[in-house]
Amino acid sequence: MAILAGQLANLKNGAPFQIVVMIKQAEVRVAKNGKRFISLIFQDRSGEISGMYWDAKDEDIQHFASGAIVHLEGQRDLYNGQPQVKITKLFLADSNEGFQTSQFVAQAPMSSAQMQDEIQKAMFDIQNAKWNRIVRFLLQKYQNAFYEHPAAKSNHHDFTGGLAFHTLSMMRLAKAISQQYSQINYSLLLAGTILHDLGKTIELSGAVGTEYTVPGNLIGHIVLIDEQIVLACQALKISEADEDVLLLRHMVLAHHGLLEYGSPERPKLLEAEVLHYIDEIDASINMISKALNKTEPGSFSERVFGLDNRQFYRPKD
Amino acid sequence: MAILAGQLANLKNGAPFQIVVMIKQAEVRVAKNGKRFISLIFQDRSGEISGMYWDAKDEDIQHFASGAIVHLEGQRDLYNGQPQVKITKLFLADSNEGFQTSQFVAQAPMSSAQMQDEIQKAMFDIQNAKWNRIVRFLLQKYQNAFYEHPAAKSNHHDFTGGLAFHTLSMMRLAKAISQQYSQINYSLLLAGTILHDLGKTIELSGAVGTEYTVPGNLIGHIVLIDEQIVLACQALKISEADEDVLLLRHMVLAHHGLLEYGSPERPKLLEAEVLHYIDEIDASINMISKALNKTEPGSFSERVFGLDNRQFYRPKD
Amino acid sequence: MAILAGQLANLKNGAPFQIVVMIKQAEVRVAKNGKRFISLIFQDRSGEISGMYWDAKDEDIQHFASGAIVHLEGQRDLYNGQPQVKITKLFLADSNEGFQTSQFVAQAPMSSAQMQDEIQKAMFDIQNAKWNRIVRFLLQKYQNAFYEHPAAKSNHHDFTGGLAFHTLSMMRLAKAISQQYSQINYSLLLAGTILHDLGKTIELSGAVGTEYTVPGNLIGHIVLIDEQIVLACQALKISEADEDVLLLRHMVLAHHGLLEYGSPERPKLLEAEVLHYIDEIDASINMISKALNKTEPGSFSERVFGLDNRQFYRPKD
Amino acid sequence: MAILAGQLANLKNGAPFQIVVMIKQAEVRVAKNGKRFISLIFQDRSGEISGMYWDAKDEDIQHFASGAIVHLEGQRDLYNGQPQVKITKLFLADSNEGFQTSQFVAQAPMSSAQMQDEIQKAMFDIQNAKWNRIVRFLLQKYQNAFYEHPAAKSNHHDFTGGLAFHTLSMMRLAKAISQQYSQINYSLLLAGTILHDLGKTIELSGAVGTEYTVPGNLIGHIVLIDEQIVLACQALKISEADEDVLLLRHMVLAHHGLLEYGSPERPKLLEAEVLHYIDEIDASINMISKALNKTEPGSFSERVFGLDNRQFYRPKD
Amino acid sequence: MAILAGQLANLKNGAPFQIVVMIKQAEVRVAKNGKRFISLIFQDRSGEISGMYWDAKDEDIQHFASGAIVHLEGQRDLYNGQPQVKITKLFLADSNEGFQTSQFVAQAPMSSAQMQDEIQKAMFDIQNAKWNRIVRFLLQKYQNAFYEHPAAKSNHHDFTGGLAFHTLSMMRLAKAISQQYSQINYSLLLAGTILHDLGKTIELSGAVGTEYTVPGNLIGHIVLIDEQIVLACQALKISEADEDVLLLRHMVLAHHGLLEYGSPERPKLLEAEVLHYIDEIDASINMISKALNKTEPGSFSERVFGLDNRQFYRPKD
Amino acid sequence: MAILAGQLANLKNGAPFQIVVMIKQAEVRVAKNGKRFISLIFQDRSGEISGMYWDAKDEDIQHFASGAIVHLEGQRDLYNGQPQVKITKLFLADSNEGFQTSQFVAQAPMSSAQMQDEIQKAMFDIQNAKWNRIVRFLLQKYQNAFYEHPAAKSNHHDFTGGLAFHTLSMMRLAKAISQQYSQINYSLLLAGTILHDLGKTIELSGAVGTEYTVPGNLIGHIVLIDEQIVLACQALKISEADEDVLLLRHMVLAHHGLLEYGSPERPKLLEAEVLHYIDEIDASINMISKALNKTEPGSFSERVFGLDNRQFYRPKD
Repeated sequence: MAILAGQLANLKNGAPFQIVVMIKQAEVRVAKNGKRFISLIFQDRSGEISGMYWDAKDEDIQHFASGAIVHLEGQRDLYNGQPQVKITKLFLADSNEGFQTSQFVAQAPMSSAQMQDEIQKAMFDIQNAKWNRIVRFLLQKYQNAFYEHPAAKSNHHDFTGGLAFHTLSMMRLAKAISQQYSQINYSLLLAGTILHDLGKTIELSGAVGTEYTVPGNLIGHIVLIDEQIVLACQALKISEADEDVLLLRHMVLAHHGLLEYGSPERPKLLEAEVLHYIDEIDASINMISKALNKTEPGSFSERVFGLDNRQFYRPKD
Repeated sequence: MAILAGQLANLKNGAPFQIVVMIKQAEVRVAKNGKRFISLIFQDRSGEISGMYWDAKDEDIQHFASGAIVHLEGQRDLYNGQPQVKITKLFLADSNEGFQTSQFVAQAPMSSAQMQDEIQKAMFDIQNAKWNRIVRFLLQKYQNAFYEHPAAKSNHHDFTGGLAFHTLSMMRLAKAISQQYSQINYSLLLAGTILHDLGKTIELSGAVGTEYTVPGNLIGHIVLIDEQIVLACQALKISEADEDVLLLRHMVLAHHGLLEYGSPERPKLLEAEVLHYIDEIDASINMISKALNKTEPGSFSERVFGLDNRQFYRPKD
Repeated sequence: MAILAGQLANLKNGAPFQIVVMIKQAEVRVAKNGKRFISLIFQDRSGEISGMYWDAKDEDIQHFASGAIVHLEGQRDLYNGQPQVKITKLFLADSNEGFQTSQFVAQAPMSSAQMQDEIQKAMFDIQNAKWNRIVRFLLQKYQNAFYEHPAAKSNHHDFTGGLAFHTLSMMRLAKAISQQYSQINYSLLLAGTILHDLGKTIELSGAVGTEYTVPGNLIGHIVLIDEQIVLACQALKISEADEDVLLLRHMVLAHHGLLEYGSPERPKLLEAEVLHYIDEIDASINMISKALNKTEPGSFSERVFGLDNRQFYRPKD
Repeated sequence: MAILAGQLANLKNGAPFQIVVMIKQAEVRVAKNGKRFISLIFQDRSGEISGMYWDAKDEDIQHFASGAIVHLEGQRDLYNGQPQVKITKLFLADSNEGFQTSQFVAQAPMSSAQMQDEIQKAMFDIQNAKWNRIVRFLLQKYQNAFYEHPAAKSNHHDFTGGLAFHTLSMMRLAKAISQQYSQINYSLLLAGTILHDLGKTIELSGAVGTEYTVPGNLIGHIVLIDEQIVLACQALKISEADEDVLLLRHMVLAHHGLLEYGSPERPKLLEAEVLHYIDEIDASINMISKALNKTEPGSFSERVFGLDNRQFYRPKD
Repeated sequence: MAILAGQLANLKNGAPFQIVVMIKQAEVRVAKNGKRFISLIFQDRSGEISGMYWDAKDEDIQHFASGAIVHLEGQRDLYNGQPQVKITKLFLADSNEGFQTSQFVAQAPMSSAQMQDEIQKAMFDIQNAKWNRIVRFLLQKYQNAFYEHPAAKSNHHDFTGGLAFHTLSMMRLAKAISQQYSQINYSLLLAGTILHDLGKTIELSGAVGTEYTVPGNLIGHIVLIDEQIVLACQALKISEADEDVLLLRHMVLAHHGLLEYGSPERPKLLEAEVLHYIDEIDASINMISKALNKTEPGSFSERVFGLDNRQFYRPKD
Repeated sequence: MAILAGQLANLKNGAPFQIVVMIKQAEVRVAKNGKRFISLIFQDRSGEISGMYWDAKDEDIQHFASGAIVHLEGQRDLYNGQPQVKITKLFLADSNEGFQTSQFVAQAPMSSAQMQDEIQKAMFDIQNAKWNRIVRFLLQKYQNAFYEHPAAKSNHHDFTGGLAFHTLSMMRLAKAISQQYSQINYSLLLAGTILHDLGKTIELSGAVGTEYTVPGNLIGHIVLIDEQIVLACQALKISEADEDVLLLRHMVLAHHGLLEYGSPERPKLLEAEVLHYIDEIDASINMISKALNKTEPGSFSERVFGLDNRQFYRPKD
């Protein structure tokens, strides 16, 4: 029985296995016999699985925490239709083994380099010089985080590179729609699309163990990136009162569509309305597809939190 | 000064003119001096303008009613920023002159034949035989009205052929989005798109003087077309309990997205969610563009009823 | 100690008993000592009680599933005010014993034959020939399910025959109200009342282990019966565009009263408004009475889910 | 041409007439020629009609005020589908003629004596002595106003005796429903029904020119009658903390059903829930019937303010 | 190791202790091994802590109930960041020891006498004789409960004397605001402030184990005190229809600000609007401060139920 | 009859007058006789009055526009309870006469110098150096507009200096409340109070003929001032990521309290919650007082738009 890395999605029920995984979440609880146990979620790039570690000692609790890379031996079981690991053995991977966190985290379906390439090329389509310079300035400033961060803590595109991939998908939608409706200012829509969620690089802590930062909690990603546009203008000697700059700020501020969703203004530009829609489309398709991937044909998915807890049907093949 | 047909959009302030137009709306009122006058809205293909006809006699009231084609002499003035006609002379066109209602009504930017051609070609992309047969059956049944009716009484695509043009625009969006997201069942999305508003051929009275019919008021276009799908199944010997038929009915029933908007079910299929979005996008772009066309650069449009009474900004050129 | 069938409601605290019951619900869980147990709800016609089956083996899990008829020995205890069975012994009833599911399921207070009789007689009051024929046609088509199904999965009239009993109660209300207000078209109100929930025969799976069907989930009982009215018209050679038919469809479509509650149209007929009210009255009285039956005089009931989670007071005797 | 009293409903278009009516509403306005005119609404028991009185002098404005009884000569015309009087002559009736306001005001379809009789008889059905005494005490205290007042300023039962007639209709519904559902405490439902709107005798100014009083505006009819129950208890030597008294107060306080509609508590008794429903049913039927009476068969009514501005359809005969 | 009373807030993690506390809440549960345990919350004036009592026998369940005063030996531990007691020994305090419930209950930061003194002095500022007499009458009638009761069951000021302390804090706000805005009738605002929550002496059962009473549930504290004002008027020979009395009743009835929050009328007096605001300010500051006291600097508090489940940030020191 | 300036509030009904006023609003309309007239609103510091100017010629329309200072001769009349001017003579004031716009506009009850003095002194209470420097920097940058602008276009404090006066009133409330609740960080509350509406100097066009600017419409005053805080930090070499700066930005961003009211974040600091309340209190008191000033004792005010269209009662004297 060889040691495998990254194959959680391929485990078979009942068959014993021996793999290397990362601990995604660890909660210590007290069992009814008074002893402590740890409720664990393991992850690798292919998926997740939960399991209980019984009779936890102090050093177990210290070792088996969120982010730890571990050797896991056990067997996959089904209780009430939900897969669980029955843990036989669990111990920390040695640092000599050379495993790295990034090996165990879900990732965008394109590489960072591929995304960077496509986005860079698209930027030539922003023909307004002010918008082009501001977008290039901010994309450079937050470049590393932009290609690393997820697009959300848990709802949609919650994987490494998710922020850039979500942005890229929306850029493709923006192009297709602008080609169909000639009255849309494609430069403005494209600039707004690239910047719309860039504030999440400040709002969220990163790709692993994603949490809201204090600025994220107190200011929010919408205003955080709006402020950065204004600072960029100053660095680039563009007046922040210039109408083109106002339009770009409005695009970013209004992209959640409704005040109740955190936008301080509702869309008042044709392009701001379209930006709101393509954001919703790409996020919805991602959330529904993620839920349907875990659903058997002919049955309904679990409830999707980000879509009003609706359940979606996966038709029979 | 020659008689012109169809040039309301080109009138200049202060210059006298002599044209032929259709009366779109006529309301009789009593002036404060006790005499009656008619508040009129004239239209031709290029636009609309309002005017007052003073001291109306019984036969005037009879003649100058909605739908009448008239010779209009007068002068375009601006009162409080709104254009009005100061009427000098108004009389009915003679039936010998050969004018027809259709010459004075706004129309889709494509001819009925062009739309029919593009839609027929697209239908080959519906690869599921049941959906293909049902769609062809219903499109044939309502063919005349489908290429004549507006998509709404007043909100969006409120012109001759508007229903078909709105449908066609959505079909193009459906294709572009399906190409980007391979998990979408394009056949289902396309079939749902073509049928989604077809019930408006029963709900609305027609292209001129559009009103809700009694079935439109009591049943609504969503259920009206769903019923027709069921009847089509019976005619085509397809079981209405077949899952493919359920999927198609759900597409139509859920396309308003929210119960509050009249859908008896919220979308529970990936394709139903996408159908709802492309309907909203195409309708919104049409409404905003219509409002911005009447707005000066650097100012805000009038309030758009169908979009929560928001005003939209037309940037400076 | 004799074996009793159907007396859950009469158990006394602390006294040992030996009865035959049906398992209504069975959930397998993992205890903190790593062993599995089954959380069970037992039912007979007189009521329900819960209990835990510890140290469950594979074959126990297989046997003690929803729908199984079992011999149950144990003792009724109270923990935190809620009755529970402390299970001493549990084993499957033998098929020779001749027990049937229907013996253990709650039922309407009238027999199916009695209800059928009263409903058939009332149908003579539908004086409009078209409504009369449509109602007879559909009642015959769904006759078996109509007198078997519950009126809802869990909220109100959730027992065998509940759908017919709820309908019958409403018919009595319809008659009393029509006698008081002569402007009501009693024929229309009666026809709408009989059909209003008939779609639940398609929407719900049946009287035992009631679940939503796929058509129930994707189309909903309101539209399902509306479609059947249209098909009935075709079978009976009545035009579906006939105003009388429109009125009847509207009755059914609007009976939930508000768009938010799933009606695609709000009531636009006097009779449709009244139908909505009598549906609410009968359902509310049923839900409140069910909750108060389980409540001590001088105290408040548990929260009633179908009535905005309100609690109701049972006055002192 | 004789002078007629009370025949507004029978006027024919175009035929001159000479009748005696009461002025229901009078608004002075300035015409565009700088002269004043009075916009009038005339009423008698059979209905209402509007008309303009041009070139009004100071004494006209003084005479032709709300409540004045006048001789009206003129002709009924239709402008835009709405009936109007073209006034030929208008002068005050002489006090010798002996007309009285009450002759010109719409009234309940039963006489005050008939209603009083039926209500007195029903009171024997309140078998609880405390409720019976409280109800008798308060009905006596507010007797005159109770049989005079309308049930509302404009929405429903807005005629002389409307409050008592609305109460009586609800009492009949309460009886029919209590007979069908034996779990209802009929005494409690009946007592609550009789008192539920009695506070309107304090809230509203009276049957003619009905306005909200200051107590009506600051306290509201729901709390006003609740306070009177407490005072009645003191007069009758019943403890206000007695549970039976609490139940009766709750009936009255909760009868609007929702906090948003002004009830400080939602219904928490079965009887309180039923009271809310029969109030809504009787008010709705009254409002819809009033609107449909003014509607041609085959068309939709005007919007009904008290029912969310819905329009109702009057089927073809 | 001496026995300590009232020092829950000062326990250190890991150090053994021996103290006297009161049981605030006790819930019996069944452990997965089939044995019963008691989930306990202990309290003294300084705070609260939870703990589990394993293998509970019948007499333990009887003894260790809500309200019991006990000797508690054990050690404070942290599980998942929440403090818990690991119980070593637990036994009832002997009645000879002379402990009293009131010694273990959280209390207002001022003594009852101090509050009484300040409130009595303030009452001289109510210059209107009718308001002054009514307030004095009712404060005397409910004096004991007023200085004992909490202001709410759990949200804000949920400690002995909380009702009087909340009222006193609002009186100070009322004074400061009246000094700044001379248009406010300070007498009216003060009288309304003192009475606004006095109905809670009837609505809630008391300071320990606070529950809603039946009158509290069926009538609510707002109407309960309004009724008492009316009864006070009768006792004091003041007409309840006097405008000054109407104003005072309106102050009390409208103080929740919105119908949805249980006020039968929205504020219609300047002073009623201000009363609503100072109620909200004092309650909010109390709830936020309570949550922040339990929060580490630089982190977010738990969710505050009474403030829409918001979390509040405690800045770094 | 001498020419008076600024006494609109003192005109008597029926008495002829001759005064100098400013035109606040001018709308050209077409009379039913085909001639144009101007519907005018005149203002001076003491109040407003409306009037009609008949038979307007082109040069009248040009002269009598918003902002013009005019000699007005006429007589005050009452039509339907509303005061109007019957215009006898109207002509432009000559520029030699030396009238200035500022003489005719309503103003704060304190002079600009007095307010400046009080605000400057209060600033010493901001003990945190970063907040103190940022507030001073921005107050200086927008000093002129801050002491000139109204606080809103029409709702509350809609007069010259209204923005500064509203801010000052809130500062006084902030001080009183901070003195009562020692847990409030007064420096933070004060800094937030001073800046909270400063963005209105960019959002609104000025004190006369106040309109929303394009930045006001597209960005809104909340974000506009937040951006200025960030720019101020850069000018002052303070890191915008500093926690103190985050706190101050949050104060400003959250001050509308609810997302629906345009705040992109709800209050998450004790001080932010308090800031929201004192903003509401001061605005509400101002709006109610303005309405009651125009109301007779013993009657209800007109509806107040900014307070959900409520009417307020002015008690009898």
